[in-house]
Amino acid sequence: MEGMVVCSANYVPLTPISFLERAAFVYGQRVSIVFGNTRYLWKETHKRCIKLASALSQLGITHGDIVAAVAPNIPELYELHFGVPMTGAILCALNPKLDATTLAQKLHQLEVKAIFVDYEFIKVVQEALELLSKTNINSPILVLIQENHLDSSNRLDYDKILAMGKVDFKISYPNSECDPISICYTSGSTGEPKGVIYSHRAAYLNSLRENFRTGTTQMPVFLWTVDMFRCNGWCFPWTMAAMGGTNICLREVTGITIINSIFIHNVTLFCGPPALLGKIGETLAADPKPLPHKVDVIVAGAGGLPEPQIRRKLEELGFNIICAYGMSEALGPVTSRTITTSHCDKLSHLDEDYARIKIREGIHNLIMEGVDVKDPITMKSVPNDGKTIGEMMFRSNTLMLGYVKNVKKTEEAFEGGWYRTKDLGVKHPDGYIQMKDRSLDVINCGGEIISSLEIEDVIIRHPMVLEAAVVGRPDDFLGEIPCAFVKLKEGSCIIAEEIIDFCASHLPEHTRPNCVFFGELPVNSTGKVQKFILRDRLIKGDWKPL
Amino acid sequence: MEGMVVCSANYVPLTPISFLERAAFVYGQRVSIVFGNTRYLWKETHKRCIKLASALSQLGITHGDIVAAVAPNIPELYELHFGVPMTGAILCALNPKLDATTLAQKLHQLEVKAIFVDYEFIKVVQEALELLSKTNINSPILVLIQENHLDSSNRLDYDKILAMGKVDFKISYPNSECDPISICYTSGSTGEPKGVIYSHRAAYLNSLRENFRTGTTQMPVFLWTVDMFRCNGWCFPWTMAAMGGTNICLREVTGITIINSIFIHNVTLFCGPPALLGKIGETLAADPKPLPHKVDVIVAGAGGLPEPQIRRKLEELGFNIICAYGMSEALGPVTSRTITTSHCDKLSHLDEDYARIKIREGIHNLIMEGVDVKDPITMKSVPNDGKTIGEMMFRSNTLMLGYVKNVKKTEEAFEGGWYRTKDLGVKHPDGYIQMKDRSLDVINCGGEIISSLEIEDVIIRHPMVLEAAVVGRPDDFLGEIPCAFVKLKEGSCIIAEEIIDFCASHLPEHTRPNCVFFGELPVNSTGKVQKFILRDRLIKGDWKPL
Repeated sequence: MEGMVVCSANYVPLTPISFLERAAFVYGQRVSIVFGNTRYLWKETHKRCIKLASALSQLGITHGDIVAAVAPNIPELYELHFGVPMTGAILCALNPKLDATTLAQKLHQLEVKAIFVDYEFIKVVQEALELLSKTNINSPILVLIQENHLDSSNRLDYDKILAMGKVDFKISYPNSECDPISICYTSGSTGEPKGVIYSHRAAYLNSLRENFRTGTTQMPVFLWTVDMFRCNGWCFPWTMAAMGGTNICLREVTGITIINSIFIHNVTLFCGPPALLGKIGETLAADPKPLPHKVDVIVAGAGGLPEPQIRRKLEELGFNIICAYGMSEALGPVTSRTITTSHCDKLSHLDEDYARIKIREGIHNLIMEGVDVKDPITMKSVPNDGKTIGEMMFRSNTLMLGYVKNVKKTEEAFEGGWYRTKDLGVKHPDGYIQMKDRSLDVINCGGEIISSLEIEDVIIRHPMVLEAAVVGRPDDFLGEIPCAFVKLKEGSCIIAEEIIDFCASHLPEHTRPNCVFFGELPVNSTGKVQKFILRDRLIKGDWKPL
Repeated sequence: MEGMVVCSANYVPLTPISFLERAAFVYGQRVSIVFGNTRYLWKETHKRCIKLASALSQLGITHGDIVAAVAPNIPELYELHFGVPMTGAILCALNPKLDATTLAQKLHQLEVKAIFVDYEFIKVVQEALELLSKTNINSPILVLIQENHLDSSNRLDYDKILAMGKVDFKISYPNSECDPISICYTSGSTGEPKGVIYSHRAAYLNSLRENFRTGTTQMPVFLWTVDMFRCNGWCFPWTMAAMGGTNICLREVTGITIINSIFIHNVTLFCGPPALLGKIGETLAADPKPLPHKVDVIVAGAGGLPEPQIRRKLEELGFNIICAYGMSEALGPVTSRTITTSHCDKLSHLDEDYARIKIREGIHNLIMEGVDVKDPITMKSVPNDGKTIGEMMFRSNTLMLGYVKNVKKTEEAFEGGWYRTKDLGVKHPDGYIQMKDRSLDVINCGGEIISSLEIEDVIIRHPMVLEAAVVGRPDDFLGEIPCAFVKLKEGSCIIAEEIIDFCASHLPEHTRPNCVFFGELPVNSTGKVQKFILRDRLIKGDWKPL
């Protein structure tokens, strides 16, 4: 239409950098970060991030370069979430618990230009760099993050480079909002971990959506219990700048540090895997004092839902627990069950229904465009019958750009114009989707598709069982047969037949496992059972049925 | 980076249509609209909008066409905010109080393909169409909106076309998120009203920002007191779909209908010009009952801030009053003073400070990228000295695409890559901007720049004065001299010298008006004084000084 124009006045690439710029002005005098005795205001955090970007730029870091970080949830890692993108570079926060070999592989894949390392993890990083030096990749600049700020050596450290930074540094905004801002590795529950690339646009929009989840709009006090290297801490570094919130950083997340932080810092929100609740539950069991105010907790990830009794107890003390479902490819949780629709109101107060939540994936958040269950071949939506199994698929501006240096995997993930979660599910008459299994984990037994999750759900109810995983064992006649791996509670003793009998009383005949193994289950860094390892062992015959 | 892709899975053009699609699922069983005895659920509103789009499509409306509407805040106008964009067409909601000639001019400029008309305004629209038929423009399809649904004629009416609509209509999403979604006319306080074009992207992002203003995130009950034709009701039709809120529609907005709605429907939020508060104040003066719950009220627009005593009284009864500043070009309010920074906390409880808010424009909202005061020639930011005057300028994804068929005005508005508000202001040491005057309204008296607002502020304090406007009168020697137009309170009697003397005791010598006129002030449809008319009259000598 005549008279229309798109120009720098009315089109600004979406980027979380804007949130910090605004926070420095609107929330300048408010506390941005608390870490032990360290405390910054938003105008200080803004200045420190600009100086960090300036220093990186002086070190030669520029548009498109990758800067890695190996650190716990400390203020420096928070600042890197802004300082690195401000140079046009891409941040990759890595799991500090990786071993040197895995770390070296990732640094090699990413060809990182600089690496920021917390003093606690310097040894493993140095080993990794040693390995890297034997390849054709240039060694990255290493910047040490110290806690006591006492280093007088000539080693490059965080404080020194910050001192190099200039406050009048000109921020390098992305040319396109689809430029990458960060890379996060998947936890690798289905095989080799993949590097997932996030765009500025996705990070910006995802940071906003977090607010709609809990109804938190202004100045929450956020406790850092989710790992910042995990989906960029579900984008909360950026969300907190948008909201002018206060970040309470922790080097170590324990039940006691969480409870203390709530009372000392008036924490209003934290999140992480469901195991967090177990930690808090243990701490509070000794001293069950009610919270001074409501605290929202978002849980998602490995381990499924928290135990109903733990949940009920914590809610009685003042926690508002929100269960979510998501993945690295979607920048964190995408669905949750807290929005108070009539549907949810009903469910959330019934324990029996609550137990079913485990296999219902909740409501998609405001920024998600499409959430569907489709036939993976025809891409047709399955009927809303609660029975027909299809693949859960998403469309959203808050999805990854793809997998680092893996065109094939990216194409597979987005085949048909939808993100394929590889999770199988059904759609109920009310439109809700329900996850049935990972597509890799379903068991094809004589043409019958069996959900491994449903069998696990039964086994876990046995009073002596602590953990259970079910995979398909190759069978010449039926294709696959369910096979259970069980970890018993301490001091328990049981034989395989008892488990099989227990399943027999709760499951249709063809879905009962016919062999049971006892022992430790192999888990990845987030605590998810690595079923591919169990399948490998079965094929190789490493484990024999008892 | 290798492995990255932008495709339909991870890039979906931002459009408010998505909010309705999601509301139908997430909030399907909740009430979307209440209007008298009419009540819809979100799944019904969704279905009705789809049917509306289908019918429009059957009537030949397609991508890029303009569909006009002349109606008060009724459900049908709400539905047009989704139904029209769902066909790819552009909605233009017009002020129903326009006269036939002005209406015809707009319909001519827009070349509208269809026009929806509320039965109350059919006469003026028919007159306008009569005028239009004498031009080279094809007559639009006219769809009548009736209230009693009793029409048995063969005239096209809203219910009939809705009945034509098919529920399986395939929504036409925008090809680009920068495609236009709607056109709204400015109120024309500085001259000829201009048609402002909004994009899907701007509407989407602006709809989200409304939530951050009041902290309203989930399911507010919104009372329609702001005109839906005014900046698309500040984007609230779309915001409510995003939030799953309930829209309480009103044919007529009076103090009584507002108070009744709060008690009957549990309204939590409404907005509009400050005059709203006067209406409520009058109603409550007779029966000052406290509200059953907190009610947020956002006021912005003509008439400046509400009187401190009205505001205090309303706040005592339970209203939370939020004062904002904005314009049609920015889709509504862009700054407001409610975010609880330490700075605001201090101000909001001091009446004296509160009175100063009138000339401080508050904090820019989350989606605004840049808010600055710049020298309009050099584009340099003015110093933060509270004194140096510059032009207030914005950069934001929530700004218009431009003015309909007016490339020149669009280019002027965005010259230098910023949106030029034409409002003059200063920046304070704390970074806050303060509006001084409209650039067209400042008076250049012998090289001295005088703010007409500052003189008006003084005159209005005179106990006999109801309204005042000051403009520059051409003067051969000094260029311009301040000249006041004053409307007295009923029953008051005063001579010009008294006003001049009153100014003399409160203003520096050179800023005192030297002539005063008494009478009605010409105002536009939002109640803003049309100073250009006053200037015209001075030049033409229509009014003589008393």
